[in-house]
Amino acid sequence: MFIIRPVAIDTYPENMAFLPRTGSSYGAEQFQALKKIEICGGDASILATLAILDDDHLLEPGEIGLGEQAFRRLGLPAGTSVTIAQARPPASLDAVRRKIGGALLDAADINAIIADIAHYRYAPMEIAAFLVACAGSMSRAETLALTRAMADAGERLHWPGPLVVDKHCIGGIPGNRTTMIVVPIVAAHGLTMPKTSSRAITSPSGTADTMEVLANVELSAARIQEIVAQENAVLAWGGRVNLSPADDILISVERPLGIDTAEQMVASILSKKLAAGATHLVIDMPVGPTAKVRSEAAAVKLRKLFEYVAGQLGMVIDVVITDGSQPIGRGIGPVLEARDVMQVLRGEADAPADLREHALLLAGRVLDLDPALPGGQGKRRATELLDNGAALAAMHRLMREQGPPPQVAVLGPLVHDITAPSAGHVSAIDCHRIARIARLAGAPMDKGAGIDLFCKVGAHVAVGQPLYRIHAAAPAGLTYARELAAEDDGFSLLP
Amino acid sequence: MFIIRPVAIDTYPENMAFLPRTGSSYGAEQFQALKKIEICGGDASILATLAILDDDHLLEPGEIGLGEQAFRRLGLPAGTSVTIAQARPPASLDAVRRKIGGALLDAADINAIIADIAHYRYAPMEIAAFLVACAGSMSRAETLALTRAMADAGERLHWPGPLVVDKHCIGGIPGNRTTMIVVPIVAAHGLTMPKTSSRAITSPSGTADTMEVLANVELSAARIQEIVAQENAVLAWGGRVNLSPADDILISVERPLGIDTAEQMVASILSKKLAAGATHLVIDMPVGPTAKVRSEAAAVKLRKLFEYVAGQLGMVIDVVITDGSQPIGRGIGPVLEARDVMQVLRGEADAPADLREHALLLAGRVLDLDPALPGGQGKRRATELLDNGAALAAMHRLMREQGPPPQVAVLGPLVHDITAPSAGHVSAIDCHRIARIARLAGAPMDKGAGIDLFCKVGAHVAVGQPLYRIHAAAPAGLTYARELAAEDDGFSLLP
Repeated sequence: MFIIRPVAIDTYPENMAFLPRTGSSYGAEQFQALKKIEICGGDASILATLAILDDDHLLEPGEIGLGEQAFRRLGLPAGTSVTIAQARPPASLDAVRRKIGGALLDAADINAIIADIAHYRYAPMEIAAFLVACAGSMSRAETLALTRAMADAGERLHWPGPLVVDKHCIGGIPGNRTTMIVVPIVAAHGLTMPKTSSRAITSPSGTADTMEVLANVELSAARIQEIVAQENAVLAWGGRVNLSPADDILISVERPLGIDTAEQMVASILSKKLAAGATHLVIDMPVGPTAKVRSEAAAVKLRKLFEYVAGQLGMVIDVVITDGSQPIGRGIGPVLEARDVMQVLRGEADAPADLREHALLLAGRVLDLDPALPGGQGKRRATELLDNGAALAAMHRLMREQGPPPQVAVLGPLVHDITAPSAGHVSAIDCHRIARIARLAGAPMDKGAGIDLFCKVGAHVAVGQPLYRIHAAAPAGLTYARELAAEDDGFSLLP
Repeated sequence: MFIIRPVAIDTYPENMAFLPRTGSSYGAEQFQALKKIEICGGDASILATLAILDDDHLLEPGEIGLGEQAFRRLGLPAGTSVTIAQARPPASLDAVRRKIGGALLDAADINAIIADIAHYRYAPMEIAAFLVACAGSMSRAETLALTRAMADAGERLHWPGPLVVDKHCIGGIPGNRTTMIVVPIVAAHGLTMPKTSSRAITSPSGTADTMEVLANVELSAARIQEIVAQENAVLAWGGRVNLSPADDILISVERPLGIDTAEQMVASILSKKLAAGATHLVIDMPVGPTAKVRSEAAAVKLRKLFEYVAGQLGMVIDVVITDGSQPIGRGIGPVLEARDVMQVLRGEADAPADLREHALLLAGRVLDLDPALPGGQGKRRATELLDNGAALAAMHRLMREQGPPPQVAVLGPLVHDITAPSAGHVSAIDCHRIARIARLAGAPMDKGAGIDLFCKVGAHVAVGQPLYRIHAAAPAGLTYARELAAEDDGFSLLP
């Protein structure tokens, strides 16, 4: 028996426990074997990684220290008695081993794996083993089971009407912030569109990051319900409402390993949409040499997988394959993107035309899901709602209901212009490189950091003419971004 | 710049660093992004996992705390100034990603991966990704390159003579402690056999654990050289001499994940033998329904892979497929196995005949590698050296040269007999189950814990007759082992 003592150490994302080496009944080898322990008190139990203290001052004899994550997840008060035991590996690891050996898993296997992952019972190496085994081969049936299991492992949002629309972009195109234009258009039309978005993980901004420049996005499930009931829509961060929590855990391993398979992508996106209560979904799938999807063939294959899984889930899906050859709009980074979005919503004369056009295309496809609208009228209706100010008014109502942003964000005051090394016309812009430069400048953590593009593919530039401006809030960010741009600025010029 | 302060926390196997949340120039998201950091001072650098302290008492402003592993591996004194940066993922991860995608890797890729792993640059999840990708498919050329890379990543032992023999059992058979009989026989004959063995990882005892009942096994490379020069042989623990260190790191991930492919096994074993300077190798490959290799077909496939890789490495190999249908000898656990070994070496009348016979078979195959011996005379010569006491004398010399064991080990005083529930004859003994029961009793950590078998396959037993005795040093061990044996005692009886 040990007495819990919280230890003020943040060991995100892992649970960590601390035991003194002396005064316990364990020897060195036993500690080594105990590396991963199960801590139990009453009905509560967690798995934690064990560290051994060789300093007698931190814990009293008989105490076990719990790091912040472990203490919170166990949920018992300080001073509670707990027992510890060597953690037994989760039983579902047997299925992972079969998958490594080439077997097909059934829905029960996959449910057990995802439930264990969602409850933090898998170590990162075990998650990696599951993901890599799945990357080796994964059937349509497995992908469907994975999607269902992930949606079932978290909360579900429920909506009164039969038609709940959603929209998702599979990403990779800097500046492609159409969601914040599509949602107000759809809300103005009157369809239900409760949009929960993610923050950026590896990109310079996610929709939640950009929306947070204009309004509060950390809304409770109850507040989301209220706003949607009143305004038909919301533009909230999804992280607060625990939709498909296993997805976030899988992503935390996928990203550093660079695992990016079609099956994982479909399961990730559709599980979140299913949990969010969407019945109809438009997917924006940009294809381009530096986008996430790099060929028409890959796009068609991915589209079919989306259609199969969504169909089995009873979800109506419309996958729109779009031009992903270069960034969209001008700004890249939260403040700059928010500026572009508001220019389009306000109908300003110099608003980025490509962002407006792309948003209207997608908003039209969403409105085409409305049975009340004659076929083929979606885009015309979307253009009408944008041009008559109804979408802008809807956006203002959403901003008012969601409340002001937690901090006022301003454009990064430190700037550096990247100029054309020779005269010519812009033949290509590398989405991936532009995103990395914006990220190094500090986006999305520094909301005002990023890149402001002055010209796009096809433009003619004179030698020394600025191609884009890097904005940063901190000198280090400006330096990192400048260095990366000096290596390769992402622009291809032809004479 | 931060000042190093050692923190008395053992975070084996990971490097861990601690920074205070307040007083640093980082925000919460930056800490999250920094999760893995590179710490640099002078020419030294390490990667470490970062934990954030919310308690102001542990570190002074401007200090970075280093856990015991991190402090030791960085190798700089307390108070040294260091810089930190977000750890860049090792460049060789690109090759791992290609392997996940189904590509074949070349030797340069594999060398880079193994060098990074040996230098602790891979997180467990990255190692898992590499191993699972390899488990999906691995060519002979990749297995060869992996073996070479692993041997090259650590120390190498060098021996004067042209013929350096070694012997390895691929494991899974409790009590199969032939090495401690083979080595003295071969030493008495006069071949060079510098045997480095492992400790048990998942079994009730490794050769190093059992030898440590009789003598010190933690010998420096220099002392190993001296003993071999004088006695032709040694029976040392391999962990002290840093042979194929990447192998130990890979195993620390393979075991919990249950990855046990032929390719990994061949690379693991042959890299260790290559690094140990062996030129000729006998492999004992027991085949049985509860052994590691479960069918003749699997054994032949594995044998061919051993032969291919060893051949390319210029190593002479003889793979002996043996009977792995039941435990060998009587004792399972360090003290009990050491007793059996000494009974055989002393030629005692009731020494376990199967252990004697198995050891003579293998010693004979090793001696057959001696060009000076007429073909087919190995086993006869081995029997002669065992029966005339030369092998026992050689063992006594090894024990004297290696020195006394660090602690006197005695047989576990707590005992419980498992009895036959009905009369009949023993039709099968489950190696895996017997090993688990011995392990729960406390072996190998408690050297006196284990199982003493009273009968083997084919024996006729009366109802209530003892089948085996569990020995333990601690009451908890006896209870755990009894409980597991009560579920299933591992013996199959037929009327």
